[in-house]
Amino acid sequence: MLLKLDFQSDTPIYLQLKTQIIEGIATGKLSPGESLPSVRQLASDLGINLHTVNKTYTLLKQDGFLIIHRQKGVVVNPDQNAMIHDEYLFELHESLKPLIAEAFCRGMKKEEFNKICTEVFLEFEKSRGENR
Amino acid sequence: MLLKLDFQSDTPIYLQLKTQIIEGIATGKLSPGESLPSVRQLASDLGINLHTVNKTYTLLKQDGFLIIHRQKGVVVNPDQNAMIHDEYLFELHESLKPLIAEAFCRGMKKEEFNKICTEVFLEFEKSRGENR
Repeated sequence: MLLKLDFQSDTPIYLQLKTQIIEGIATGKLSPGESLPSVRQLASDLGINLHTVNKTYTLLKQDGFLIIHRQKGVVVNPDQNAMIHDEYLFELHESLKPLIAEAFCRGMKKEEFNKICTEVFLEFEKSRGENR
Repeated sequence: MLLKLDFQSDTPIYLQLKTQIIEGIATGKLSPGESLPSVRQLASDLGINLHTVNKTYTLLKQDGFLIIHRQKGVVVNPDQNAMIHDEYLFELHESLKPLIAEAFCRGMKKEEFNKICTEVFLEFEKSRGENR
């Protein structure tokens, strides 16, 4: 999977990396059980700091997206489910607030907003179907 | 309206400020036509750089949330509507992608995601009703 970093962006590199790996899993470009490069390798490939990659991998491991295997190294968790806990729901709610506040101010109706969410969901479902 | 900045956060200060002002407008804590502090005043109150406040105000002006009035200074745009253009829809779509990718990976259904969005919308509608 091709990772693209935007060094001009306000979004920290470790977050860009995290988002792209999650999107890779969502679209099926990264398959359950697939190996990812080591911290050292990925940092070298992307020309970024070891600590940045380490931070991303650690967060993704904590969230259950990756496992760090003694022999196999960094692997996409083959068991991607049952991860909807209260802490995640709270974070999701907090992340949606600014987006919905803006939509609401711009006069968007909730039905319209939900329609866009459904479209994005369907895009991921479609990509995953194609990549499997 | 009370603005709270988190200097430990990865979110840049100008974005935290932008989000909070938009949420203030959404909840009705900031009313259409209401005056905001000058760039200088707000920077001094929050202990941040003038340029940071200026960046936030400029972005909010470009997006039509604020107007910068020759006599009255910075004012919440009394005419908050008709701001759903293609560029905004594209940005919204891009902002939703990482959130939906994660929800999708965690096994959340689109109906469940949309239900959370509806809840957040209703919270803003309720706050606005109470603040008017």
